[in-house]
Amino acid sequence: MAVRLAELAARFGCELRGDPEILIERVATLEDAGPGCLSFLANPRYLKHLAATRAAAVVLDAGSAAACPVPSLIARNPYATYARIAQLLYPEPPVAGGRHASAVIAAQASIEASAWIGAGCYVGPGARIGARTFVGPGSVILEEATVGPDCRLVARVTLCKGVRIGERCMFAPGVVIGADGFGHAPDVDGYVKIPQIGTVVIGNDVDVGANTTIDRGTIGDTVIEDGVRIDNLVMVGHNVRIGAHTVLAAMVGISGSTTIGRRCMFAGQVGLAGHLSICDEVVVTGKTMVSRSINKPGVYSAGLPFDEARNFRRNSARFQKLDELARRVRRLEGRAVNDSKEDPDE
Amino acid sequence: MAVRLAELAARFGCELRGDPEILIERVATLEDAGPGCLSFLANPRYLKHLAATRAAAVVLDAGSAAACPVPSLIARNPYATYARIAQLLYPEPPVAGGRHASAVIAAQASIEASAWIGAGCYVGPGARIGARTFVGPGSVILEEATVGPDCRLVARVTLCKGVRIGERCMFAPGVVIGADGFGHAPDVDGYVKIPQIGTVVIGNDVDVGANTTIDRGTIGDTVIEDGVRIDNLVMVGHNVRIGAHTVLAAMVGISGSTTIGRRCMFAGQVGLAGHLSICDEVVVTGKTMVSRSINKPGVYSAGLPFDEARNFRRNSARFQKLDELARRVRRLEGRAVNDSKEDPDE
Amino acid sequence: MAVRLAELAARFGCELRGDPEILIERVATLEDAGPGCLSFLANPRYLKHLAATRAAAVVLDAGSAAACPVPSLIARNPYATYARIAQLLYPEPPVAGGRHASAVIAAQASIEASAWIGAGCYVGPGARIGARTFVGPGSVILEEATVGPDCRLVARVTLCKGVRIGERCMFAPGVVIGADGFGHAPDVDGYVKIPQIGTVVIGNDVDVGANTTIDRGTIGDTVIEDGVRIDNLVMVGHNVRIGAHTVLAAMVGISGSTTIGRRCMFAGQVGLAGHLSICDEVVVTGKTMVSRSINKPGVYSAGLPFDEARNFRRNSARFQKLDELARRVRRLEGRAVNDSKEDPDE
Repeated sequence: MAVRLAELAARFGCELRGDPEILIERVATLEDAGPGCLSFLANPRYLKHLAATRAAAVVLDAGSAAACPVPSLIARNPYATYARIAQLLYPEPPVAGGRHASAVIAAQASIEASAWIGAGCYVGPGARIGARTFVGPGSVILEEATVGPDCRLVARVTLCKGVRIGERCMFAPGVVIGADGFGHAPDVDGYVKIPQIGTVVIGNDVDVGANTTIDRGTIGDTVIEDGVRIDNLVMVGHNVRIGAHTVLAAMVGISGSTTIGRRCMFAGQVGLAGHLSICDEVVVTGKTMVSRSINKPGVYSAGLPFDEARNFRRNSARFQKLDELARRVRRLEGRAVNDSKEDPDE
Repeated sequence: MAVRLAELAARFGCELRGDPEILIERVATLEDAGPGCLSFLANPRYLKHLAATRAAAVVLDAGSAAACPVPSLIARNPYATYARIAQLLYPEPPVAGGRHASAVIAAQASIEASAWIGAGCYVGPGARIGARTFVGPGSVILEEATVGPDCRLVARVTLCKGVRIGERCMFAPGVVIGADGFGHAPDVDGYVKIPQIGTVVIGNDVDVGANTTIDRGTIGDTVIEDGVRIDNLVMVGHNVRIGAHTVLAAMVGISGSTTIGRRCMFAGQVGLAGHLSICDEVVVTGKTMVSRSINKPGVYSAGLPFDEARNFRRNSARFQKLDELARRVRRLEGRAVNDSKEDPDE
Repeated sequence: MAVRLAELAARFGCELRGDPEILIERVATLEDAGPGCLSFLANPRYLKHLAATRAAAVVLDAGSAAACPVPSLIARNPYATYARIAQLLYPEPPVAGGRHASAVIAAQASIEASAWIGAGCYVGPGARIGARTFVGPGSVILEEATVGPDCRLVARVTLCKGVRIGERCMFAPGVVIGADGFGHAPDVDGYVKIPQIGTVVIGNDVDVGANTTIDRGTIGDTVIEDGVRIDNLVMVGHNVRIGAHTVLAAMVGISGSTTIGRRCMFAGQVGLAGHLSICDEVVVTGKTMVSRSINKPGVYSAGLPFDEARNFRRNSARFQKLDELARRVRRLEGRAVNDSKEDPDE
């Protein structure tokens, strides 16, 4: 596909500088771009590559436009504008309605004619698949699960019994939605499994990464609101609710019954304890353990910076006596200066 | 299914208060319950919802019974009793013996007539499937793997060559049992793979969560004893042994050749180094790294509490000079008070 | 298979002590070995088992040979030599060329006659499978993916569109290569998905563990060089490059666009931030968060040692006031000794 620069400017609301007739065929980084390539500048760390770029055009903001040696599309949000142009240039292949001969589809399933069910898929009784939804090879959709229109299950996705998926969602290979939550009541002779009779409800425009798992609710449902983006190998426990447009990076783990607000961002390997409440617009940096509720938007951390192992060992040995050290400092303050009756630690 | 309250009381050994003829049809939380609903009170945090509940009956302990405005079942362990009642009300669907026409089953496999092999499954030569075991769609059971009676492989489960599974086990979608352990001997020109010739042996009543992996042993076997409960995305390395009724929450990682006792609990994202020995009844809190053996029951931690990022950065910068700080305090103590010849740090 | 000890010595370049006619049939640990068993001593912690071993022969180094009560093979690197002998004794089963009748193979796929495509597999248009490569049951190979010769996809492996795999690679069950990278540009009304138009390129002799995911590049490719060994449940983000013979233990997470050198070792649950550069021969210990680039070979750590929960809580409470504590020490130093105008903390 080739698109005139003028058309891109009009369609995505950019100011155009340079030849409107240039044809854009593909995207590339500033460094690697050549004729026909559109590039973008969104992160100042790549500004150094702008002067030498051989891109046909660059998407950037007004502040960088003067430094651009080639035609440009000036956007308020160059990164999002680039993303939209790339979606235009690299569309998902259209979904041809139908079903592969090897797919096993229960008689009582309801599948829109424009949906595709791929090779080796299984669709159980009572399941419903919406218009233009693509179910890639090897996927398993158990009884009564429903998938809205325009979704994309790339391959080998599992949707368990009764889960409900909205519109335009994407599930990468290996995703498991609606497995039993982890509920086991301790008793004298071991654990008694607690039936997980809720389900998972996912809104619209949700993306779920490879091998991520989202468990079904114990009594109520696990809920993922619109626009949530989830990376690979994430674990969402039972009865969790995740607010709209929240982002979970890879390997985040959310324990059961925790509620998360809207527009939050959790970096890689963050863990949240159960039964917490996290308000809107909370950012948590990598590897942090969130062990109590957060009711104030902001940035939160707990991941120690690394060090050479020898130094780290020395400091962490001191950490193990930190309380004692603080008491010694308190004593020193009392003896040496004695200018306060109050214990600064209490 | 509807069950009289008197029947529940008799079957599960509860004292009944209120009308024995009430019919229980389903379960619900104290807040959401209505007619026909059984609810339960096991966690004091939900006591506030008891007074206003509209449940048909509530399972609770003797101490809370007086505060219950509706009929009740008084149990020593309300949570476990609730779990057993819920199992009665929401039974797993019965397994219809047979095999889907699309399943591929090696001639030399041995499958009990009452077991079900679902759509698109593969069962290899020498594999054995016990009575009433359900093998859900898309599962792969490689050669010589054996599965006992009354197991449930929900969907897309992989059992590798020769693994041995006991009775009444549950495997969620995406589980991989018996992949090669991670054994690679370093040599001058890279690594030499060490054949993993052991297998995985799993006892009875073991639950394994979605996308969890349990690797086969190098020479001996990886062993999971009876009643172990494993959540999603857990990694159990080769030659590990996990004692009966131990619980692993999501994303726990256990390195090779570590032995874990009985009735332990590992919270989410805990990691254990290899070749350790952990005694019975050890509890490890979330995200802790267990880097040495534990021979005393108790609760162990290493996950730092989170903080606002600005504060955390300031404190963690100090952490990187903590050894130096401790030495400075020692010097201060020597100069200012001089009341001891001994170094408190040694 | 039985092999004479003399043949093993000759083939693997070992000095032989003892009867060259002994037949070796299998391997075992020093403790469990009996007649026909080869054992090895590579880790001094097992030296205590040498004197009582009943192995037919032991692979060990020259320094331990005198203490060996049975015939021995003396090797410079006993562990690697053991690994090679075990590979000889336990060969992978030969691959019978062909395809299972239930496999779905696109007309435009190109599959070498000596490759095997297992039950229930899907191979898309334009995909290419090399000689003697084994594609285990339930695997999905999407369009235009290419796999070199002598690879082994054990079962239920997913290779997404256009990924390119070298020779002699092993993929455990549940692996997903080439799912979309996690690229979402924030905009006023949520996120815009950034098409991930690169792919994944994997070299030769790469091992990938169960349920690991390696994402495709955004514009360029994600690259895994020769000899890399990756354990289970690892996440490799888009545009990452991993240098030859680097090892990633289970649950390591590598964020997008990070470059890792050769012969590095990352222990379990290590996390790396994005856009970093890690030089050759870096070792990172378990659970460490790597938040900045490393340009010096060495060993790096950040995982705090665990403690009894009560002690840990006390110390971590102090950690949250560590900056204040350091300031108090500074004040004490100023008042008590006053031997420096300089703030040692700056």
